[in-house]
Amino acid sequence: MKVLIIGAHGKVGRLLVKELQARKIDFAAGLRKEEQIKAYQADGIPTQYIDLTASPKEIKDSIAQSGADTIVFSAGAGGAGYDKTLEIDLDGAIKTMDLAPELGIKRYVMVSAVYSDDRSKWEQSGIRPYYIAKHYADKYLRGTNLDYTIVHPGTLTDDEATNQIKIQSNYEGGSVARGDVAKVIA
Amino acid sequence: MKVLIIGAHGKVGRLLVKELQARKIDFAAGLRKEEQIKAYQADGIPTQYIDLTASPKEIKDSIAQSGADTIVFSAGAGGAGYDKTLEIDLDGAIKTMDLAPELGIKRYVMVSAVYSDDRSKWEQSGIRPYYIAKHYADKYLRGTNLDYTIVHPGTLTDDEATNQIKIQSNYEGGSVARGDVAKVIA
Repeated sequence: MKVLIIGAHGKVGRLLVKELQARKIDFAAGLRKEEQIKAYQADGIPTQYIDLTASPKEIKDSIAQSGADTIVFSAGAGGAGYDKTLEIDLDGAIKTMDLAPELGIKRYVMVSAVYSDDRSKWEQSGIRPYYIAKHYADKYLRGTNLDYTIVHPGTLTDDEATNQIKIQSNYEGGSVARGDVAKVIA
Repeated sequence: MKVLIIGAHGKVGRLLVKELQARKIDFAAGLRKEEQIKAYQADGIPTQYIDLTASPKEIKDSIAQSGADTIVFSAGAGGAGYDKTLEIDLDGAIKTMDLAPELGIKRYVMVSAVYSDDRSKWEQSGIRPYYIAKHYADKYLRGTNLDYTIVHPGTLTDDEATNQIKIQSNYEGGSVARGDVAKVIA
């Protein structure tokens, strides 16, 4: 198995890198910015350039170069604006899902958001457009033939990982350390 | 037949209202703003309040009240920001598609954009996030069991309608009067 972490410089992505290193799981850290690639390489972390706003052909080349048979999608526009949310969280994610079968990739792990399936919570969240993008990316993934896992973590914290999580089919609130999310993905 | 025009105050929507009146086709003009509803009613145009950012239940009630068996989706966030593009052009549209079968509606006409299926044109357009939203709304519609038509007009103008259009499976450029788009929909 070889994992391509798309969004390896995000808060969860960085912890996932450490987690996969600790478990000696083969991976490539998918990154877009040159300075991030240099910094990771300086730390001996295997990297793969990937730009989710590029054409499907370019993204396909990036994923193929990584040699991965598994994708973890942990990228997100964050606070960069809802134009980027459309480009990264929605279209960027779906482009990788569409390309996966062409590259022989069956396993796909999506880092989603806790309320992406519960629109009754979107209004009061103040970030409804973000939930819309995540919702339709998740929905698209469920419609593919990929072996997928969609992770919907609760409120994320930077606390120390506890190695303990609570799995709920109906989220009743509560927080989870990003380090524990990384462990779940690993 | 009774048509609900969602986005009846848009540039195409307004012309479609006139077109359906001229053809004596039963319709309701779907509008969100109170002042638009009052203005249309003053002109004797049948109206239906509908807010695409409302919950599915509220939207369902609005569509049901209209008594329509056909939807024309001509709404759009326009320049209101890409948060609204996600809420209206993507999620708003898909909510009405999901609700249509529950309301016995089979016929659905989507006013889309000419390049929504050709991502090679998105980058240079300067409005790629808009195309992304339209692309996935169209794609979702194709996956439904609705009797749908997706209209991809070329560059829109406010010129007089000509009653002449050119249908191309591969768009080679060229413009079309919004009045002619309204005639195509009608």
